[in-house]
This record gives sequence, structure tokens and C-alpha cells, in this order.
Amino acid sequence: MINENFLNLKTSYLFGEVDRRTEAYQQRHPGASVIRLGVGDVTLPLAPAVIDAMHAAVDECSRAETFKGYGPEHGRAFLREAIAETDFPGLGIKASEVFVSEGSKTDMGNILDIFAPGLSAGIPDPVYPLYTDTCIIAGHNIKYLPMDASNDFSGDIPEERLDLVYLCFPNNPTGAVASRKKLTEWVEYALRNGSIILYDSAYESYIRDDSIPHSIYEIPGAEDCAIEFRSFSKTAGFTGIRSGYTVIPEGLALDAADGRKVRLADLWERRQNSKYNGNSYISQRAAAAALSPEGRRQTRAQVDSYLVTASGIRGILADAGLDPAGGVNAPYLWVRTPDGMGSWEFFDCLLEATGVVVTPGAGFGPGGEGRFRLSAFGERHASIEAAERIADFVKTL
Amino acid sequence: MINENFLNLKTSYLFGEVDRRTEAYQQRHPGASVIRLGVGDVTLPLAPAVIDAMHAAVDECSRAETFKGYGPEHGRAFLREAIAETDFPGLGIKASEVFVSEGSKTDMGNILDIFAPGLSAGIPDPVYPLYTDTCIIAGHNIKYLPMDASNDFSGDIPEERLDLVYLCFPNNPTGAVASRKKLTEWVEYALRNGSIILYDSAYESYIRDDSIPHSIYEIPGAEDCAIEFRSFSKTAGFTGIRSGYTVIPEGLALDAADGRKVRLADLWERRQNSKYNGNSYISQRAAAAALSPEGRRQTRAQVDSYLVTASGIRGILADAGLDPAGGVNAPYLWVRTPDGMGSWEFFDCLLEATGVVVTPGAGFGPGGEGRFRLSAFGERHASIEAAERIADFVKTL
Repeated sequence: MINENFLNLKTSYLFGEVDRRTEAYQQRHPGASVIRLGVGDVTLPLAPAVIDAMHAAVDECSRAETFKGYGPEHGRAFLREAIAETDFPGLGIKASEVFVSEGSKTDMGNILDIFAPGLSAGIPDPVYPLYTDTCIIAGHNIKYLPMDASNDFSGDIPEERLDLVYLCFPNNPTGAVASRKKLTEWVEYALRNGSIILYDSAYESYIRDDSIPHSIYEIPGAEDCAIEFRSFSKTAGFTGIRSGYTVIPEGLALDAADGRKVRLADLWERRQNSKYNGNSYISQRAAAAALSPEGRRQTRAQVDSYLVTASGIRGILADAGLDPAGGVNAPYLWVRTPDGMGSWEFFDCLLEATGVVVTPGAGFGPGGEGRFRLSAFGERHASIEAAERIADFVKTL
Repeated sequence: MINENFLNLKTSYLFGEVDRRTEAYQQRHPGASVIRLGVGDVTLPLAPAVIDAMHAAVDECSRAETFKGYGPEHGRAFLREAIAETDFPGLGIKASEVFVSEGSKTDMGNILDIFAPGLSAGIPDPVYPLYTDTCIIAGHNIKYLPMDASNDFSGDIPEERLDLVYLCFPNNPTGAVASRKKLTEWVEYALRNGSIILYDSAYESYIRDDSIPHSIYEIPGAEDCAIEFRSFSKTAGFTGIRSGYTVIPEGLALDAADGRKVRLADLWERRQNSKYNGNSYISQRAAAAALSPEGRRQTRAQVDSYLVTASGIRGILADAGLDPAGGVNAPYLWVRTPDGMGSWEFFDCLLEATGVVVTPGAGFGPGGEGRFRLSAFGERHASIEAAERIADFVKTL
């Protein structure tokens, strides 16, 4: 009577386990200076344009004439239109193809509701755990797609057909970006095989290299094989405010068992109509403000600031001989552990010696063993100090 | 490759169809005075305590020292504790058994993730469409539980075993409440059969009769067979703000196929950890403010106001000989159509003649045919006028 697939999940969720070990350390060493470069949460306050918009939205809700109750499940028109115009310039994405929600973690989990169980799902290795866990819960068959230095951390095109292919660029955890050429190969693969690409571009605003695509829809044909997920969390600091969205092009369709074409946007719309009541009005006004000209200037400056931190960490680790990947066009660095240490072993030793919390690569899948992830979202000075502690620690080994 | 269960859903979602017909009417009669007593959305502005708390929370997010990013997926401690203490006085519900989300529609849909597909699900008839639609999407076998005047709109205890039983009191759409005796019979049934009760108490704050239970956990044994879903939407006017929660007692468990006991709270926690990032911080502060002594006084006055509207509508319809059910201890009235008209037929004729929008009973399931639902959430004067228009219309038949 229970969903037995849950019993196939690993017992501990990555970030929960990191928290547990960190708390145990703090109990053993009360007063120790802990710096967390682990969980990828932002730290800069919200942009003034966003704050102003939220105050105004709260005030609207204080008066009967301007009170806002239920809105459309898929987001209010002002936000869907702002997203289509601002985030996909020249790509022909319509407001009606944009489905607003409270975040892309939620959407990337819930999207599996529209697919049959027991599909083959290609999942990058290493990978943010949500793809794996939600595929296990849904009873899909996972085929790992190794993404490592041998393929520029953007994968080799598989020989076999896969029903679903998860891609995430700029990548969490590796910080890798995919070239236009590689993304084109993935889209061609999907079109050839009738696969659906689930494209996570939560970190697209960190791309500063003009040759790197921000959206899968920059690749011809992607509108016939790809769903794209985006979030305001890392673009505008909305990890506590909650707003994101999913793009499903109107032509994207699959055959039902009886042969009729079924539009995936229709299935998602029905799924959300049945199980969702829309993103908070306050959050939607906040998101629209982040997309305004002023909001874009302010939030871009925040992203720039995190990129400066990433660059600083990268320099210190490189000087210590660690040869970090990522940290350019992305807020994450993906670093090989010294002396071939296991990634949880390194996590424990580093924490015990320095109080610095990283995220063990093995928590992101088998291909993450022997690596650790650093986030550039922490406060600048603390993050640089943490990088220096890591560099000093490595010298002691 | 798609979830074929979606193809078993009826084409049009109830409220969407109501909107479509209303818009068509407005196009045929530009300038007509339309009053919507259909969709159950609130209209009173948010309570001052809630507004103040949201402004303060926005200000917190404007400064680095008080900025709030990711919180726990299941809600911040201040809110979980306030809910356990305030909403379940004396019932022994712990903060750790309260799982905050952005609404109970979402939770009641998503809860099915923790159960196997193909279960037998007892669903009241008539019923708010979400239970039916989400059970169809998940591939469950629906057994309708007729709830009509013959059983005080609270159902007859079934002969056969059901895996899941949905109950909603005060009821949407009928406005019925369940007596302590009837709820005790449902709990005893569930305990006897190993059924899980999914108890929707979104409207509990409308109960003014002290003999009526507000929570299923007032019934002994419910902690071993029931999950309760609540929302701030109708209690505090949060339909646009989004906050709700689910209670899963820690002892509630089912046997897995291999015989081990699995706690449903553990499954839900894992489901939410994998697919959810928590309710907006602003919304959580708003919800906590609604539970403060001042917030409770203010929101209770709002509920009282809607109950006065319900009573006014009820009186007018009763005088017109319509004998409405509901509208006492509940914001909904459930009214028999005159002369045995079909409920969509009545909807169309009433709209055409008066501009009043009701919700056709048939949209809530086969048992709703020949009835219509009125909501007391509209602005007072407009709602009373709509009731008078209905009364006048009925006289013309």
C-alpha cells in the first residue's frame, strides 16, 4: 500500500548528512569558527527593486479594492509576459509556454507525474541528488551519464535510446558549462531517439562568455524535444522567497498508446490545475521586479559579486596545486581531493582540522567520488578565508 | 511514455468551464452586472497583524544580517511550533508532526506519491474535484461514497475495505459538518480495515458549534489512521499568499511488502526533501502572525463576517422555498435546483437571466447533479443581491 520505491532511496539525504556531521563537530568543538562552503544558499540581501515591489504587493493585500486572492495556477500574466520577453529574447518563447511555480526543484520533481513509470532516464554523474531521488520514487530506470574531465564535464552522447535525459548547465555540482556544439549534439540525439531533455538552467545568469548558450532553446530543434526549468533563486537571491518557472513549448508532444499526439504542455497544465494553486502573489511581484530594467541591473551586480568570490577561491586553490574545475560562468567549483582521499573522508578531515564545511562529491553520485564541491554564495571574506584554510590544510597532508 | 491516466480525466476542469461560460456571457452582454458566487475565493483584505508581519519579513530580507534564504523544507520552527500549540490545543500534536507547505491542495495531491498506485480510494460524492482528479492521475480505483441528505451529508460507513478514505468537514461543496459520532464511526472503520483517512479540514475555523470536532485528532485512534490537511487560505485569507500544512502523527505506519513498518511521516519527509524547498519566508511569517493572539482575533472577525454573509444568503433562499443545506459552521451553501433542473442547465439559465455565477453541483461528481453551490466569500452587499436575484429568478420558473 506504500510506494515501495521509497525503500530504494539511500537512507540519508546529502545535505541532511552534511548538516548532521557539522552539528556533531560543533558539539565536539563549541566556539569553533565554522565556515560553510557546502549548501548552495545565497547570502546577499534582496535587490532594492525587489524589496520595493514586495512592500507594494503587501500593501495591495491590505485593502479590499486591491486585495489579491487566487491567481491563475500557472502565474499571473504580468509575470509570464515579463519572463517570455526578458529571459528568452529573440527565441520566440510565448508567455503561454511559461509555467510559473515556486521553484525549479519542485517542478523538476513534479514533472515526472506527466510521464509513465518505468522509463529509462539518463542522469548525469555527478548530479544534484534531486534527479536521482525523484526518478527512484517514480520507478524509473536510471542510466548514469558520466560527466568528467574526459568529456569536458558535459557528457558523451549515449549509444542507446533513453526516454528522458537530464541536463544541467551551468552544472551543479561541477560548475561546467556546455558548448553550443555539445548542446547541439544532445538535441540531435533527443530528436533522433524521441527522447525528452529535461534542461535545468537555474544558473544561466552566471554565464559571462558570449559563446555559451543560456537556454536550450538557442539550439535549433530543442522546441521539439526539451523542457527547460529556471529559478529566481540563484539569479535574484530568491531561495527564501520562492519563485521559478518551467518552459514547455506548445509543439512539444508525444504519442499516447492509442496513437494520438498529446502535448506535454497540456498534461503539465492539467497536472498543475489539479495539484497547485499558484505562486504567492508577493513572490510573483518580486520576480517581475527582478526582471525590470532596474531589477536586472541590481541582480546582475549580485551575480557579478558571487563570480568575484568564485574567482578568488579558484585562484587560492589553484595556487595550492588543487587544479579546480568550474568557478567560471558558474558559482560552483569542483575540486579533486588531495592524495586520492575519499570525498567523505576528506570532508571529515577538513572539517575536523579547519572548521570548513564542503560538500562531498560522492553525495552527487558515484562519479563524484574523489571530488568536493565549493559554493561561491557565501560571504566574500569568510569564503576567501575558507579557501585559505583549505589551501593550508592541503599543505599539511 | 506519457502517463496515460491523464487521458482518463474529464476534458474540462470545473472552475475553468465555469470561467469559460461566464466569459462567453460577458461577451454576449457587455456591461452586464455579473456577481460570482461560484469560485470560493476570499475577498476581505489581510488582517493588520499579517500585513505588519509581512512588511517586517520583507525588511529582514533587505539586509545581509537578517536575510533569509533556504529554510527547512517542512517549515521554520517558529511556524511549526505555533501551529502545534495553537491549532491543536490539548491534542498532543507535536511540531515535528506538522509539515508546512504552500497549501493543502498541493499537499492533498502530492500525498499520493507516498502510496502505491492502484489502490482503492473512497471519495465523497459530491466532492471538490481535486481528490478525484489526483486519484485518476495516480491510477487509483475510485469508489464513490454518497453523501446526501439521507446520511446528513457525512456518508454511510462502507461494507468493503478501502485503502484510502477522503473526508472533508466542514465540507466543500455541501457545507456539511460531521458529528463526533459519525467521525468516530469513520475512525473505527479505518482502524478495523487498515485504511488511511485523508482528512481535509481547510474550513475548520468556520465551526461555531462547540459539539462539532475541528480536527480528526479529537477522535481517539485517529492518530493511528489519519492524515490531516489544513490551510490558511480560508482561515486567514491566504489564497494569494499561500501557506498550509499537513499533520502526520509519528506513530502512523503501514507495512511494506517485506513486512517492516514504515512511518508515513518518514515517507512524506523524504518526498518533500526531494521535491520541495519550503514555503516562502514571507508567507511563513504571515502565517505565524495569523496564529498570534492579535492575528487570531482579527482573522476570527473575518470568518465571522463570512458567516454573517452565509446566514444572509441562507435566509433569502429559505424564504424563496429553496431549503438550502450548509451555510452554518461552513462558508458554502448547497442548494437543490428548482423543478429538478440539471445543474449545468440551471447554471446557464440563471446566468443568462440574472448575471449570477454559481457552481453547478454536477461538477462535483454524479451526486451533485440537481444541486448548486454558493460561496459566502463574496463582498457582503453583492452576495446578498445575488441571493435576491436567485430568489426572484426562481419565482419566474
